[in-house]
Amino acid sequence: MASSPETLHDRLGELSDLGAAGALVGWDRETVMPPGGAEGHGEILATLERLAHERLADPGLGRLLEAATQAGGQDAAIARVVRRDHDRATRIPAELTAEIARTTAAALPAWMEARRDADFARFRPHLERQVELARAVAACFPEAAHPYDALLEDYEPGATTAQLRTVFAQLEAGLVPLVEAIAARPAPAPLPGPFPEAAQRVLALEVAAAMGFDAEHWRMDDAVHPFASSITPSDVRVTSRWDEQDLSGLLAVMHEVGHGLYEAGVDPALARTTLGSGVSMGIHESQSRLWENQVGRSLPFWRHWHPRARELFPSLAGLSAEDLHRALNVVHPTLIRVEADEATYSLHVILRFELEVALVEGTLAVADLPAAWNDRMRELLGIEVPDDAHGCLQDVHWAHGSIGYFPTYALGNVVAAQLWEAARRDLPGLDDALAAGDCAPLLGWLREHVHRHGRLLDPPDLVERAAGGPLDPAPLLAYLEDKYGALYGLPR
Amino acid sequence: MASSPETLHDRLGELSDLGAAGALVGWDRETVMPPGGAEGHGEILATLERLAHERLADPGLGRLLEAATQAGGQDAAIARVVRRDHDRATRIPAELTAEIARTTAAALPAWMEARRDADFARFRPHLERQVELARAVAACFPEAAHPYDALLEDYEPGATTAQLRTVFAQLEAGLVPLVEAIAARPAPAPLPGPFPEAAQRVLALEVAAAMGFDAEHWRMDDAVHPFASSITPSDVRVTSRWDEQDLSGLLAVMHEVGHGLYEAGVDPALARTTLGSGVSMGIHESQSRLWENQVGRSLPFWRHWHPRARELFPSLAGLSAEDLHRALNVVHPTLIRVEADEATYSLHVILRFELEVALVEGTLAVADLPAAWNDRMRELLGIEVPDDAHGCLQDVHWAHGSIGYFPTYALGNVVAAQLWEAARRDLPGLDDALAAGDCAPLLGWLREHVHRHGRLLDPPDLVERAAGGPLDPAPLLAYLEDKYGALYGLPR
Repeated sequence: MASSPETLHDRLGELSDLGAAGALVGWDRETVMPPGGAEGHGEILATLERLAHERLADPGLGRLLEAATQAGGQDAAIARVVRRDHDRATRIPAELTAEIARTTAAALPAWMEARRDADFARFRPHLERQVELARAVAACFPEAAHPYDALLEDYEPGATTAQLRTVFAQLEAGLVPLVEAIAARPAPAPLPGPFPEAAQRVLALEVAAAMGFDAEHWRMDDAVHPFASSITPSDVRVTSRWDEQDLSGLLAVMHEVGHGLYEAGVDPALARTTLGSGVSMGIHESQSRLWENQVGRSLPFWRHWHPRARELFPSLAGLSAEDLHRALNVVHPTLIRVEADEATYSLHVILRFELEVALVEGTLAVADLPAAWNDRMRELLGIEVPDDAHGCLQDVHWAHGSIGYFPTYALGNVVAAQLWEAARRDLPGLDDALAAGDCAPLLGWLREHVHRHGRLLDPPDLVERAAGGPLDPAPLLAYLEDKYGALYGLPR
Repeated sequence: MASSPETLHDRLGELSDLGAAGALVGWDRETVMPPGGAEGHGEILATLERLAHERLADPGLGRLLEAATQAGGQDAAIARVVRRDHDRATRIPAELTAEIARTTAAALPAWMEARRDADFARFRPHLERQVELARAVAACFPEAAHPYDALLEDYEPGATTAQLRTVFAQLEAGLVPLVEAIAARPAPAPLPGPFPEAAQRVLALEVAAAMGFDAEHWRMDDAVHPFASSITPSDVRVTSRWDEQDLSGLLAVMHEVGHGLYEAGVDPALARTTLGSGVSMGIHESQSRLWENQVGRSLPFWRHWHPRARELFPSLAGLSAEDLHRALNVVHPTLIRVEADEATYSLHVILRFELEVALVEGTLAVADLPAAWNDRMRELLGIEVPDDAHGCLQDVHWAHGSIGYFPTYALGNVVAAQLWEAARRDLPGLDDALAAGDCAPLLGWLREHVHRHGRLLDPPDLVERAAGGPLDPAPLLAYLEDKYGALYGLPR
């Protein structure tokens, strides 16, 4: 090969650019690509990922990281994080990565057919292979206290199986009785529709603008599965989909803009260092969830926005902010994770976490997964799974080989509540600001305590500094108990 | 660096994917990118280009090309073309390429200001540097018969300065009296507008669909400067802009779809070999020009489309196909190349070619360029240049360091007419087909004789085989004399 860039920053700039190119190809595929482009986009993405992996694993990068660590200062702090990426790229053999890619390519269509026909047997051998490969990845890190820790590291640096077990046990202990108590109360009426797509778009763009979306640096498009993607911190793209029966499109936009604000708010000094993005899936999800739930499903928020909503949706005539707030906070156990409400969502995640850990440990066989799933659904949410399409076949993650991802969804809920509690402590006027349509104080707080750090602080360190303590499910439980206690008139 | 792909096809696949990623980033920049993304997109593109250059110049690729050449067969044919790219990448020093990029980065804003203020002095030092660097590039190829030949090679493999001088002299000898004769006749009335943008879009998409645009593999967007870009042969993107005073938006779409059909029509066996695209700028321009002019400005085409145009544009009520045809073929010498009609366009190009050659030879100093430009405009088109913004500052190419590009525009006109003559010979029913709205016979002929070859045949070889003879301006002159002779009632 011809000469590689000589300095650490040139190397990291190159890696960042490859990542940004991949992000753009991925965004394009989900939004504007003509369908015929799918195969080509797949090949482009594979090549960009291979090149990035090659560069990341390069021994020359290792030497530059060593030198930066010796030299100290900001570059040493950057090198600490990149070193971890480099070690990971070095320790997982290229052949194993390639085998996971091949397995995934076969598993995805098999999973789609299996889900369509509620036929777990069709997916079973593919999942067995993915679990086997996940264990092979874990085996590359024999120093891990638990093999699942090595998988978690990809999505949530610093998280451990032991810690998650503790946190999730506390969460389960609080959530199960809360959901049961709510289920015993009469359900509020849903919002009267319709909510025409065009009017939802108008409202969503106005809300997004109030949050911090600006047309100079952002864009919004439609996608089958809403997502956010920042090509660079100055080019942030969110997507949504629209259901005319409810306001889920608006809340999806708030969720995705929450992700986007995180990426847009990273310290510009971290641009093109590979540290200029969110630090983990869990912290990312804390940002999207906080805007979607703590803000978008709050009464102060709707005090400001309900006149505008009534202007745009004639079906809301006569409804108060309180009515809107109540209707957007219906709690109802469901079979499907992505349709779950704020109170039940984490229970879906806890179930998946437990099953994943057992699969990786080898204490649960893939063949026994459907029964184990259905049993836990009964225990956690009190509902019966009619078939595997509505049970263990519902999510794409396992077909994708993404084992270790699920817990980050619940971590996002936990951390969002911790941050929300801290922000309310620091900003006594926060409710009044939101009720006046002013999101700037909250955004400023999140920028200062979360966004600007990019990947420079590991998640445990970030939570400790921003929330004033370690990962803790108590604020989430207190927030949900307060909110639903008031809404459903539960005994305290 | 870690291991590179082992086989020639893997290497070429990687190079193709890097090119496709760059094409997508470039398309995004001109169509959907939020303005704040410009700097990041520039960095991504620079990295992708640097990586592609590094891979192209790699000695390992040289060895694989050598082996493929020895082995013979289709791979040897592919290796012949790639070898030329490899040699070029190897012979131009990386430092010279970087210096051209730096010079261009400074020259572009200086050119914009100079053009805005019609102040050539501000651009002069930048152009002097670009000419110097172009001569340095040419000096890397001392075997070239003329230094300008080495520059042409980037845009039009196989073309020579000597040949272009001959062809352009013949063209000038035919075009100047033709344009003079037309100018002596009364000008036809322009089309009565307005042509609302929405209706132009409808017509343009219907015409594009008749040409071969299908939504499964193509998309159409707006852009400030219309262009076509194929990410892969299955993902082709065209752009247009709209002027409600005329039908230029429709003709721009036909032009860009002409480019797109070329890329979409390459033999799939050449996909991901770096040969799966158009062979030169001149041959590419022959495809766009043929659809725009020989088809889109022809009477048979309008026989089919004029009822639909009258439906969409009430201002055309009462106009016949002949009226439309006449109004779309007004000839009028203009100062600005991009506004030039079919008869005068090549004269603008001949002027630029001559001046570029003189600059590279050193027989014209940059300081004397404005006067030389203005003199030739008077001789070729009989018009006075009021200031340099309407003269030698009008085009971006020289600020861009793209010296050797201009002649390909006129080559496109020449080759389009040669292909058109050959296609009409082979397809006696071509006019009737077009008059019935059927573009398939023409597209089939172009696929067979031009598109499918991709970069496998060099332009001279392709023209020889497709048109039955070498590059020849006679068919273009005969076509223009026939067309305008009839339209303007010129003496034969």
